[in-house]
Amino acid sequence: MKPTGYTLDATFAALADPTRRAILARLATGDASVTELAKPFTMSQPAVSKHLKVLERAGLISRSREAQRRPRRLEPRPLGEATDWIERYRRIWEGNFKRLDAVLQELKSKERKAVDALLESGKPKLKKRRTR
Amino acid sequence: MKPTGYTLDATFAALADPTRRAILARLATGDASVTELAKPFTMSQPAVSKHLKVLERAGLISRSREAQRRPRRLEPRPLGEATDWIERYRRIWEGNFKRLDAVLQELKSKERKAVDALLESGKPKLKKRRTR
Repeated sequence: MKPTGYTLDATFAALADPTRRAILARLATGDASVTELAKPFTMSQPAVSKHLKVLERAGLISRSREAQRRPRRLEPRPLGEATDWIERYRRIWEGNFKRLDAVLQELKSKERKAVDALLESGKPKLKKRRTR
Repeated sequence: MKPTGYTLDATFAALADPTRRAILARLATGDASVTELAKPFTMSQPAVSKHLKVLERAGLISRSREAQRRPRRLEPRPLGEATDWIERYRRIWEGNFKRLDAVLQELKSKERKAVDALLESGKPKLKKRRTR
């Protein structure tokens, strides 16, 4: 088994290209042969094959054993691991952010009360000044 | 504004490195200076700074204006866009998979009924053969 670090490296590197993302998007709707996958692109079939090799090495796609056509299939597990990684840290960040926000809200409410108290105690003075 | 494709390219490329992921994981718990971020790694501060530049260019971190320390802060938006992209196609794939699974279940149940009917009609014959 590959260490998780290596797999995440390969998954994210494979996702960092618009052609490879388009290939994955196409495969999400169903298996497809290399010829079918190459059709929407203005690049040669060998160029598409290179991208497929990167996706295959990252474990994001596999080849069916079906003779001749050998259609490619999306493998969702590495995608799941990639979102798991991102979401773990997004949640930690959001948790901290919410706590920070709660502290700020509390400070604001305390400050507002202090200002209100100050205004209340200062009212006669303010009135005096205004009438001066 | 950068086109989404470019941003996703930069986000995924930035995530394809264990040091950069570790830096983001650290920043998820709170802002940190370059010195603080470099501490857990056995690499030079300039090497860490290079990784920080990649993360900054991808919009994954920003610098606080706080003088001298200039702590780095996690920017969660690109992370959200990255998971949004992955999850969109995972969901399409899962939807297709569930539909395929339902079709297979239906076929299996029809097949089972057909086999049951065949066994039912064939029972006397099978018994005859066995007693021969």
